[in-house]
Amino acid sequence: MRLFRRNAARAGLPPGTLAPAGEKKAEPSAVNVMRYSEADGCSEKRVDKEEIPHTETGQGVVWLNCDGLGDVTVIESIGRRWGIHDLVLEDICHTDQRPKVEDHGDYLFVVLKMIYPGPAGDDIQMEQVALILKDGVVLSFQERAGDVFDTVRTRIRDGKGRIRRMKSDYLAYSLMDAIVDNYFVVMERIGDRIEALEESVIRQADAESSARIHELRRKILLLRRSVRPLREVVNSLVQSESGFVTRPVRPFFRDLYDHTIQIIDNLELSRDFLSGMLDIYLSSMSNRTNEVMKVLTIIATLFIPLSFLVGVYGMNFQHMPELQWPWSYPVLWGIMLLTTIGFLTYFKKRRWL
Amino acid sequence: MRLFRRNAARAGLPPGTLAPAGEKKAEPSAVNVMRYSEADGCSEKRVDKEEIPHTETGQGVVWLNCDGLGDVTVIESIGRRWGIHDLVLEDICHTDQRPKVEDHGDYLFVVLKMIYPGPAGDDIQMEQVALILKDGVVLSFQERAGDVFDTVRTRIRDGKGRIRRMKSDYLAYSLMDAIVDNYFVVMERIGDRIEALEESVIRQADAESSARIHELRRKILLLRRSVRPLREVVNSLVQSESGFVTRPVRPFFRDLYDHTIQIIDNLELSRDFLSGMLDIYLSSMSNRTNEVMKVLTIIATLFIPLSFLVGVYGMNFQHMPELQWPWSYPVLWGIMLLTTIGFLTYFKKRRWL
Amino acid sequence: MRLFRRNAARAGLPPGTLAPAGEKKAEPSAVNVMRYSEADGCSEKRVDKEEIPHTETGQGVVWLNCDGLGDVTVIESIGRRWGIHDLVLEDICHTDQRPKVEDHGDYLFVVLKMIYPGPAGDDIQMEQVALILKDGVVLSFQERAGDVFDTVRTRIRDGKGRIRRMKSDYLAYSLMDAIVDNYFVVMERIGDRIEALEESVIRQADAESSARIHELRRKILLLRRSVRPLREVVNSLVQSESGFVTRPVRPFFRDLYDHTIQIIDNLELSRDFLSGMLDIYLSSMSNRTNEVMKVLTIIATLFIPLSFLVGVYGMNFQHMPELQWPWSYPVLWGIMLLTTIGFLTYFKKRRWL
Amino acid sequence: MRLFRRNAARAGLPPGTLAPAGEKKAEPSAVNVMRYSEADGCSEKRVDKEEIPHTETGQGVVWLNCDGLGDVTVIESIGRRWGIHDLVLEDICHTDQRPKVEDHGDYLFVVLKMIYPGPAGDDIQMEQVALILKDGVVLSFQERAGDVFDTVRTRIRDGKGRIRRMKSDYLAYSLMDAIVDNYFVVMERIGDRIEALEESVIRQADAESSARIHELRRKILLLRRSVRPLREVVNSLVQSESGFVTRPVRPFFRDLYDHTIQIIDNLELSRDFLSGMLDIYLSSMSNRTNEVMKVLTIIATLFIPLSFLVGVYGMNFQHMPELQWPWSYPVLWGIMLLTTIGFLTYFKKRRWL
Amino acid sequence: MRLFRRNAARAGLPPGTLAPAGEKKAEPSAVNVMRYSEADGCSEKRVDKEEIPHTETGQGVVWLNCDGLGDVTVIESIGRRWGIHDLVLEDICHTDQRPKVEDHGDYLFVVLKMIYPGPAGDDIQMEQVALILKDGVVLSFQERAGDVFDTVRTRIRDGKGRIRRMKSDYLAYSLMDAIVDNYFVVMERIGDRIEALEESVIRQADAESSARIHELRRKILLLRRSVRPLREVVNSLVQSESGFVTRPVRPFFRDLYDHTIQIIDNLELSRDFLSGMLDIYLSSMSNRTNEVMKVLTIIATLFIPLSFLVGVYGMNFQHMPELQWPWSYPVLWGIMLLTTIGFLTYFKKRRWL
Repeated sequence: MRLFRRNAARAGLPPGTLAPAGEKKAEPSAVNVMRYSEADGCSEKRVDKEEIPHTETGQGVVWLNCDGLGDVTVIESIGRRWGIHDLVLEDICHTDQRPKVEDHGDYLFVVLKMIYPGPAGDDIQMEQVALILKDGVVLSFQERAGDVFDTVRTRIRDGKGRIRRMKSDYLAYSLMDAIVDNYFVVMERIGDRIEALEESVIRQADAESSARIHELRRKILLLRRSVRPLREVVNSLVQSESGFVTRPVRPFFRDLYDHTIQIIDNLELSRDFLSGMLDIYLSSMSNRTNEVMKVLTIIATLFIPLSFLVGVYGMNFQHMPELQWPWSYPVLWGIMLLTTIGFLTYFKKRRWL
Repeated sequence: MRLFRRNAARAGLPPGTLAPAGEKKAEPSAVNVMRYSEADGCSEKRVDKEEIPHTETGQGVVWLNCDGLGDVTVIESIGRRWGIHDLVLEDICHTDQRPKVEDHGDYLFVVLKMIYPGPAGDDIQMEQVALILKDGVVLSFQERAGDVFDTVRTRIRDGKGRIRRMKSDYLAYSLMDAIVDNYFVVMERIGDRIEALEESVIRQADAESSARIHELRRKILLLRRSVRPLREVVNSLVQSESGFVTRPVRPFFRDLYDHTIQIIDNLELSRDFLSGMLDIYLSSMSNRTNEVMKVLTIIATLFIPLSFLVGVYGMNFQHMPELQWPWSYPVLWGIMLLTTIGFLTYFKKRRWL
Repeated sequence: MRLFRRNAARAGLPPGTLAPAGEKKAEPSAVNVMRYSEADGCSEKRVDKEEIPHTETGQGVVWLNCDGLGDVTVIESIGRRWGIHDLVLEDICHTDQRPKVEDHGDYLFVVLKMIYPGPAGDDIQMEQVALILKDGVVLSFQERAGDVFDTVRTRIRDGKGRIRRMKSDYLAYSLMDAIVDNYFVVMERIGDRIEALEESVIRQADAESSARIHELRRKILLLRRSVRPLREVVNSLVQSESGFVTRPVRPFFRDLYDHTIQIIDNLELSRDFLSGMLDIYLSSMSNRTNEVMKVLTIIATLFIPLSFLVGVYGMNFQHMPELQWPWSYPVLWGIMLLTTIGFLTYFKKRRWL
Repeated sequence: MRLFRRNAARAGLPPGTLAPAGEKKAEPSAVNVMRYSEADGCSEKRVDKEEIPHTETGQGVVWLNCDGLGDVTVIESIGRRWGIHDLVLEDICHTDQRPKVEDHGDYLFVVLKMIYPGPAGDDIQMEQVALILKDGVVLSFQERAGDVFDTVRTRIRDGKGRIRRMKSDYLAYSLMDAIVDNYFVVMERIGDRIEALEESVIRQADAESSARIHELRRKILLLRRSVRPLREVVNSLVQSESGFVTRPVRPFFRDLYDHTIQIIDNLELSRDFLSGMLDIYLSSMSNRTNEVMKVLTIIATLFIPLSFLVGVYGMNFQHMPELQWPWSYPVLWGIMLLTTIGFLTYFKKRRWL
Repeated sequence: MRLFRRNAARAGLPPGTLAPAGEKKAEPSAVNVMRYSEADGCSEKRVDKEEIPHTETGQGVVWLNCDGLGDVTVIESIGRRWGIHDLVLEDICHTDQRPKVEDHGDYLFVVLKMIYPGPAGDDIQMEQVALILKDGVVLSFQERAGDVFDTVRTRIRDGKGRIRRMKSDYLAYSLMDAIVDNYFVVMERIGDRIEALEESVIRQADAESSARIHELRRKILLLRRSVRPLREVVNSLVQSESGFVTRPVRPFFRDLYDHTIQIIDNLELSRDFLSGMLDIYLSSMSNRTNEVMKVLTIIATLFIPLSFLVGVYGMNFQHMPELQWPWSYPVLWGIMLLTTIGFLTYFKKRRWL
C-alpha cells in the first residue's frame, strides 16, 4: 500500500470531471445485473453499456454490479440512467476517497474500502467499493473484479436464508457485511504476526526486529485510516432517519457497527502492543550492549594490569635487583594470581559475573 | 489470553448462522431453571432442552441459566421458546463479542466479559456471559460451567437479603455485580505484582524486568478492552428510560457503575505506573552501562600509559643511555607512581571514584 | 499510599452489607453533635450511639460528626435514625470509594478524599470523608479523628464570619473547603520538592535522581486519581438544580470549583515538569557516558600505537639493523612525539579536548 | 516558513488600524474585476483604485480580485465602497491570521492559507487569501500575484462547465477548491520524501537522517496549523444556515470538506510515520553501537590475554626454568591457540559472530 | 516564574478574608479615576481611598484603575462603594487566581494574567489583572503599577479612534486587548529563541542544549497554564447573553478570541518543536558516542593484534628458531602490514572509515 494515493494530478480540473483513476491501469468495466424477489426467484444477466436498465421500482430488488472502473463511459451511462449527481460519479471513479456516506435525497451514496491479503500473503491490498442505495435498487462499483461478493451472490441464487425475502437495504447490508468480514481475515493475520514477533523479540531480538515492528505499525496505521471513517459510515446508517434503512434491517446494521468497533479495538490494541514491543526491543538492545561491555571490561581489567607487571620485568635496566633474586619469578606469579582473585571477587560483588 | 479471538473463520457465513464457538472445544450445554418469589420461596430444576419452559409472566422471577455453549440446539430451542432474535442467538454463541447492551423492545440483551485468575494463578481467564432480561425472567448464558453465580444462587436459596423481595432486574444486577466483583480480585493480583515488580526494579533491575513489565502491560491492555465497553453497558442501564430497570434497583446499578469507573481508574493508574517503571528500568540500565564504562576507563587510563613506559625500557637498542644509569629503575617507579596519583586525582575530581 | 486499596475481600457479599473497612484496624467511632443558629448561639455535645438525635428540622443547623468507622453499629444507628439508604451506609464504611456525589431525593451524599502530609513529612496520608447534606442537617464521617475540621468548629463557636447566619449548605461548603485547602498544602510541598529536584538534576544528575522522579510521579498519579473526580463532585454541586445548594451559597461552591481546577492544573503541570526532568536526566546520563568514552578513547588512541612501536624494538631477532644504529633511540622518541601531537591535533579538531 | 509570523510589532495599535503587512515588502495592489452571467457572457477589466465599482446586485456575478496588499489605500477604498467592517479590512492586511469564517450579516468573510511548493522545490510557500462573499459578488485578496486562480479564470472565460450558470457562492467554492487542490500537490511531495527517507533509514541510517526527519516533521507541523482551522472553515460553510451557500452548491462544499478531512488524515498519518521512523533510526543507531562494541570486545578479548602470556616470557628474570626447556615455545603456541579457540566458541555461543 | 504560587498559607482562613497577597511585598495601592464621553471629553484624577466615587450611571464612562494591591483597605472601600461581593474582593487580592469570568448579575468579574518580558530580557514576568465591568463603569486592579494600559489611556486622552464614542464594554475590550497584545511580544521572543536553539542543536549539540530546551519547555508550560483559561474567558464573553457585551463590541471580542486561539496554536507548535529538538539532540548524542566508539575500536583493532605479534618475538626462550632466521624481521613487518590492510579494508566495507 502506498502512503498517499495520488490525486495531485487532478488539481485544477473542474469538479465533476470524470477521469479514469490515475496511477494504475484500471480494468475495463463489466456490468452485471441481478434481479430477485421472494415470489419470482432470481435472474442474472451480463449487460453492455447500451443495455443498462432504466430506473424502475417494480417488484423485487435490482442489483447492478460494475466490476472495474476503466471505462468512464459505462459509469457515465449508469449515472445518466439512474439520475446520479456528477460529483458522486467523480467520487466513484477516483479511488482515493475516504469512506463516507452521503444522503442525496432519493439515493444514499456509500464509499467503502475493501481490504484483502495480497498474493504474496504478506501484503495488504486495498480497493474502493462504492454503493448506491435507492428504493429497490443497489448499484455497486468495484475497482477490480473480485470474489468478495460471491458469497452474497450464492445466497441470492440459492434462495437460502432471509435475503430474498428482504428489500434492497438488506442487500446493501449484506454487501457491506461481506466487506467488513474481510477486515477480520486481515486482522487475524496481523494478530498472528504480532504474536510471532512478540515471542521472537522476547527470546532473541535482532536488528531486523525493529524493521518488522515498523512494517506492522505501518500496516496498522494504513488500516486505521480506512476503518475509522468506516465506523462513522455504519453508525450514520444505524442512526439515519432517512428511511433508506428500514426497521427490520436496523439490527443487522447495528451488528455491523459492533463489528467495526471490534476492528478498531483490535487495531488500537495492536498499536499499543507494537509500541510495547519496541520498548522491549530497545531495552533488550541496551541490555546486550551492557553484556558486551561487561565482557570487555572484565577481560581488560584482569589482563591490562598483569601485562604492565610482566612488562616491568621485561625492561633491560642493568640495575634491577629483582631480576637476580631466585624467588622473584614464582613470587610474581603469586602476586598476579592474587590480583586476579581480587578483581574476580570485586566483579562477583557487583554481579557482573 | 490471546491477542484476538478468531472470528475470521466465520467470514462469509450469512448473518444469524449459529455455529459452535470456533477455536476451543465448547462444553455441552446444561440448563438450570430457578423460580422464586417472596411468597412462594424458591424451586430449582435441571431441565433438558425439550423441557425448556415457555414464556410466562406469573408470580415471581424465573432464572434460566445455561452453562456451556457446546450444544447449538439448546440455544436454538431457548431462543424459539422465548422469542429471541436470530442475531442475538448468534452473538450468544460467538464468544468474541464486545460487551454491549441492546434494547430489543420486549427484552434487553447484555453481553459481558467475566474474568478470573487461571489455574496457574498467574494468567487470567476470560469468558463471555450473555444475559437476557425480560419482564420477570432472566436468561443467562455462560461459556463454561463456573461458580461465579453460586453466591447469588445461595442468597436466593437462603432467602437472605433483599433478593427474593425484588424483581428480575435486581437478579440481573446481582449477576452483573458478581461478575464485576471478580474484576477486583484480578485487579488486586495485578496491583500486588506491580508493587513487587516496582520494588525489584528500583532495587536491582535485571534483564527479565522489561519482559515482566511488558507482560503486565499486555494483561492490562487486554483487560481494558473488556472493561471500557463494560462501563458504557452499565451506564446505559443506569440512564435507560426503557423500564427494564425499575426505580428501586437504579441505585444498585449506579453503585455498579461506580465500581466499573473504579476498575478503569485502577487500570489507567497501573498503565501509568508501568510506563514509569519502564523509564526507571531504562535509566538504571544506562546508569549501569555508565558504571561499567567507568571501571574500564579507569583501569585502562591507569595502566596503558604505564605499559608504554615499561615497554620503552624493554627495547633492545644498543645505544640507550638510561639503561646503564644506576638510578633509572627507581626513578621510573617514581614517575609511574606520580602518573598514577595524577590520574586518580583527576578521576576523583570528575567524581568517577 | 498503596496502589489499590483492597476491596477484593468483599467480592461475593450481598450489596448493602456493612463490614468494617478491611485492611487497617479502624478506630472506634466517636459521635459529636453541634447545634447552632444565629439566634440561639451554639451548643456542642459528645453522644453515645443510643443518644443519636432523631430527624428534626427545628431552628438552626445540626452538625453530627462521626470520627472513626470502627464501630459498625454506630453507623447503622445513625443510618436508621436519619433514614439513610443501605448502599450509602456501605459506601461510608468502605473507604475505597471514588469521590462522588449522589442525590437521594431527601438528602445529598458526598464522598471526598482528604489528604494531608504524613508524620514523616515526606509521605501523603489519604482518608475518606463522607458528607450527608439534608435540610438543616449535615452528617460527616471521618476515617480517623483529625483536626482538619477544627477551623470550622472554631468559627462556629466564636460566631465570627458569616457561618452562623448561613444554613446547612454553607456548613457543607465550609467542610469541603477545609478539605480542599489541605490539598494546596500538599501541592506546595510537592512543588518545593520538584523545584529542588530540578535544580539537582540540572546541576548533578545521579543514579538516585530517577528513583526520586519516579516517586514524585507516583504521588502525583495517586493524587490525581482523587482530585479528578473531586472536580466533578464540586461541579455537579454548582450545577445542581436540586435545591440542596441555595443561591447565596452557590458563589462559594463556584469558588471551591475554581480551587479544584487550580489543583488539577498544578498536578498536570507537575506531571509535565517531571517528564521533562526525566528527559534531562536521560540526556545527562548519555552525555556522561560520552565523556567517559572520550577519555578512554583518547588514552587508548595515544598509547596503544606507541606501545606497539616500543614492542617492535623489544623483539629479539638477531637481524634487526635499527638496533645497532646509534640514532635509533632518539629518532624513535621523535616519531612517537610526532604521533602524539598528530592525534592531539585530531582530537582538538573533533572537539574532544 | 518561519515558526511564527511577526505581529508583535502591532502591539498597542488601536484595533482596526490598517498597516501594510510588516515583515516582508508587500507587493503593490492590482485590482481586477470580472463580470459574467449565463446570458451576457464574460467581461474582464483591470481597474485603478478610483474606478472600483460600487455595490450593485444586477444580473450575473462580479468577481473583484486584488493581487498584492502593498497599497493600503486600495484596500480602504474597496472597503468603503462595499461596506466592509474596519476589523475585516485589518484582518485582510495582516497576513498572520488563522483561517476562519465570519458571518457579518450582509457578507461572509473567509480567511484561508494558500500553500505551494517554493522555487527551490524543497520548501513550502504560504500565503494568505481573504474572500468576501456577498450576494452576487466575490471579493478576493491575495498577498502576491499568483496563478492559482488562473484555472478558475479560464473556466469562466471559456464558459465551459457549470460555472457561468451558477451564482457567486459557486465562484467562492471554485476559488477555495483551487486553493485546497494545491494542498494535495504539496502533500504528495511530502509523501514522496517520507517514502524515500523511510527506505534510506531502513537501509542505511546516517547522522543526517534525524535532521531530515526533523525537517519533514517541522513542515508537517506548520501545515497542520493551517489545515486544521481550514476544516472548521469549510465545515461551518457546509453547516451554515445563513443563506450565503445555496442548496445546489452545498454538495460541492461537502466535497471540499471531504478533501480537507483527507488532507488532515494524510498529515496525521505522516506524523505517525515520521515518529515511527525516528524509532527505527534510534534503534538502528543503538544497533550499530552494539556492532562496534562487539568488534572491539572480540579483538580485545582475543589478544589482551595472549599479549599478557607473551609478556610473561619476555621477562628477564635469571631464574625462569621454562625459558630453557626446549618445547616451551611450541607448547606456548599450543596454549595460545586453545585459548583463542575457547574464546571463539564462547562468542559463537553468545551469537556475537 | 515559580512553579506554583503559594496559597497554602491561607488554608484554614474563612472564605472572603482579605489578606495582602502573601509571598512578595505588595506595592501600596494608587487609585486613578478617568471619566470620558464623546460629548464632554475626558477628565483624569488621582484619588485617595476616602474619595473613591460612588456608584453612578451618569453620562459617559468611568474607569477606576487601582495600581498595587498592598493596601487592603483601599480594595475594601472600593468594594463597599461599588457593591462588590466579598469573594470577588478576595480573588482580586489573592494573585494566584486562574483566569476566569464570573457573572454576578449586576457586574461581570474578569481575572486575567498579564505577561511581559522581565528586566533581564530572558525571563517572563506574570501579573494578575482583575476587571469589573458594570454598566458605564470599568474597575481595573493591577498587581504593580505598569505601563501596559498607557496606550489605552493615551487613546482616551487624545480622543482618537472610536474609544470615546463607545461604552464601557469597549473600554474593557481595549484593556484586555492591550494585555493579549503583550502575549505576542513574549511569544515572539520565545519563537526567536527556539529558532536559534534549533540551529545550534542541528549544527553542534552540546551538553547545555538539553538544559536550554528544558528551560524553554518550562516557560511554555507556564504560559500555557495562563493562556488556556484565557481562551475560555474570552469565548464566554463572546458567547455571553448577559448584555454586558453589546452587539457593536462583539466583533472586537471575536477578534480578541482569534488572537487567543493564535497564541495557543503557537504554544502548541512550540511544544511540538521543542520535543522534536530533544529527539534530534538525543540522536545526535548517540551518534557522537558512536563516532567515539568507532575511533577507539579502529585503533584498538589495528594495534592490539600487532602488539601481540611483536610481543611474541620479544620472548626470551632459548629455542625460538625464527629469531635466528635472517629474513624474520622484514617478513614480520610484511605480515603486520597485510593485517593492517586487511582490517582497513574491513572497516571500509562496514563504512566505519
